[in-house]
Amino acid sequence: MADTGWPGCAKSLKGVILDLCGVLYDSGEGDGVAIPGSIEAVKRLKESDLQLRFCTNETQATREKFVAKLQRLGFGISVSEVFPPAPAAIAVLKERGLRPHLLVHDGLLPEFDAVDKTNPNCVIVGDAAENFSYQNLNEAFRVLIGLEKPVLFSLGQGRYYKETDGLKLDVGVYMKALEYACDLKAEVIGKPSPTFFQSVLSDMGLKPHEALMIGDDLVNDVGGAQHCGMKGVQVRTGKYRHTAGSDSGQGHLPHCDARVLEWSLASSPVRIPPPQGGRFVHGRGRGPGQTDRWSWELGQRRRKVWTTAGGSRAAPGRWSGQAG
Amino acid sequence: MADTGWPGCAKSLKGVILDLCGVLYDSGEGDGVAIPGSIEAVKRLKESDLQLRFCTNETQATREKFVAKLQRLGFGISVSEVFPPAPAAIAVLKERGLRPHLLVHDGLLPEFDAVDKTNPNCVIVGDAAENFSYQNLNEAFRVLIGLEKPVLFSLGQGRYYKETDGLKLDVGVYMKALEYACDLKAEVIGKPSPTFFQSVLSDMGLKPHEALMIGDDLVNDVGGAQHCGMKGVQVRTGKYRHTAGSDSGQGHLPHCDARVLEWSLASSPVRIPPPQGGRFVHGRGRGPGQTDRWSWELGQRRRKVWTTAGGSRAAPGRWSGQAG
Repeated sequence: MADTGWPGCAKSLKGVILDLCGVLYDSGEGDGVAIPGSIEAVKRLKESDLQLRFCTNETQATREKFVAKLQRLGFGISVSEVFPPAPAAIAVLKERGLRPHLLVHDGLLPEFDAVDKTNPNCVIVGDAAENFSYQNLNEAFRVLIGLEKPVLFSLGQGRYYKETDGLKLDVGVYMKALEYACDLKAEVIGKPSPTFFQSVLSDMGLKPHEALMIGDDLVNDVGGAQHCGMKGVQVRTGKYRHTAGSDSGQGHLPHCDARVLEWSLASSPVRIPPPQGGRFVHGRGRGPGQTDRWSWELGQRRRKVWTTAGGSRAAPGRWSGQAG
Repeated sequence: MADTGWPGCAKSLKGVILDLCGVLYDSGEGDGVAIPGSIEAVKRLKESDLQLRFCTNETQATREKFVAKLQRLGFGISVSEVFPPAPAAIAVLKERGLRPHLLVHDGLLPEFDAVDKTNPNCVIVGDAAENFSYQNLNEAFRVLIGLEKPVLFSLGQGRYYKETDGLKLDVGVYMKALEYACDLKAEVIGKPSPTFFQSVLSDMGLKPHEALMIGDDLVNDVGGAQHCGMKGVQVRTGKYRHTAGSDSGQGHLPHCDARVLEWSLASSPVRIPPPQGGRFVHGRGRGPGQTDRWSWELGQRRRKVWTTAGGSRAAPGRWSGQAG
């Protein structure tokens, strides 16, 4: 069995997949704002030997417009590196001969320009935001309820995301609404669909255990990646909210990775090392009341990362800060 | 055990509870329209020895305005006979010291005039219709997600209802949306809550087996009533849609009641008899390929009601029409 702790992960790691909104930037008015340290994080990852892709459930714009926004924010990211759900959905429509009724954001519509939408025999729901009016939801509902075999595709299943002016409801909420109204189960295209993650892995030519997914969504990013055999870690930016059970070390995350990468990626300066450099050092605490000490050692520099209750690997405890 | 067939039901029956929208009228522009035969049905029921109440999940208007609309449509119904969810919700708020954020129809707001809504510690969602904008749903979501112990009340849990211009999404759809967004379970006030049905029974001074609920919603009217020990039957008007499994005789309904009352109530002229008058006559078919014949006999008149496969009481079959 693969070592799921950080040292094992670091050894086999050949690629990193980053979520975008909530990890690299917070969306909001205009282009939103980059999260401090994240532009440098991307730069450092690209300079490393790791492959890097971006996997997003963003459906408010075409891939081209979305990447242009990221570039304006300062990220050195190109269109071919970014994987959103809409192109994957279009491939499914073609494969199954389906014509969609679209309940999506105006910004996403051009992505479907070449798709036959006459006499729809399925519904696609994306993050339509202000387009989620009562009237539009009714319209999608009536298409579905009028079909002999209703088919609903949801471009993601997120509950909410963070914009600069607060939390906003995501597509999953409206997917659930339509599921309940029509007594059906939607097919999710995008994270956490295994097919979606697999398409990114294929593009990198990597096996699941060689890749690490970093996101702010415990279910769709972290859980979805882990379900595919990848490593998955959660950052504390974006939609992350500290509640009982929401944190790492509760069984959902490999107990080292989350905090290390949160520390590495979301803080500035960025400390993601190339895989051949540095190592984690584990100083085991002795006896009850003592603490284990986990550090990152790179050349002559050693930084204390966190401490855990003595002898416990399973439940990392008090976060001891970045300096050491 | 009580006889759940129609003759047994008719013997013990002392009260009838009618759903309103979809049973007596179809809502829509203006006041909507009365369903043919329903005005006369209410009149005849009131002339009988049966007690009569109206139990609705209507939350688009105050009880007074709602009843005024029914009166304009021609129904002899008074405010004290009508049980909607909002007054029940206000009683719960008082009992538990809660201050609501309201996501409801403008028409319902005056019902909550006397309720303290400052610094809300719960959310009430009703059939808000056009008020179900993205912005308003976000606002309710943010109230809930900001509470340490979020409490969501839903005034009903219907999936959809019929208006004169088509099917419309009901409150249950938005309840599910908020449940998913906040990872919580709403408390439903209104049908099918047993507390709600019990309050109507108490008002009539009847035991559950003495009352019959008639509605167009298999889950919230029929199922809810049966769950309380009442009889429940579905009419074929309103949101009723014929699909596999949606009809009576599939185990959800006492096999006689649904079709008889559908015939009695939704057709014109209405044939709901006073309980002391008339009786059902069951002519049993003999052998395979024969049909059982169920008839309603009142004085010298006998009407064929329906036929079923020979010897089968459990699965009434082909509807044979109203004349006999």
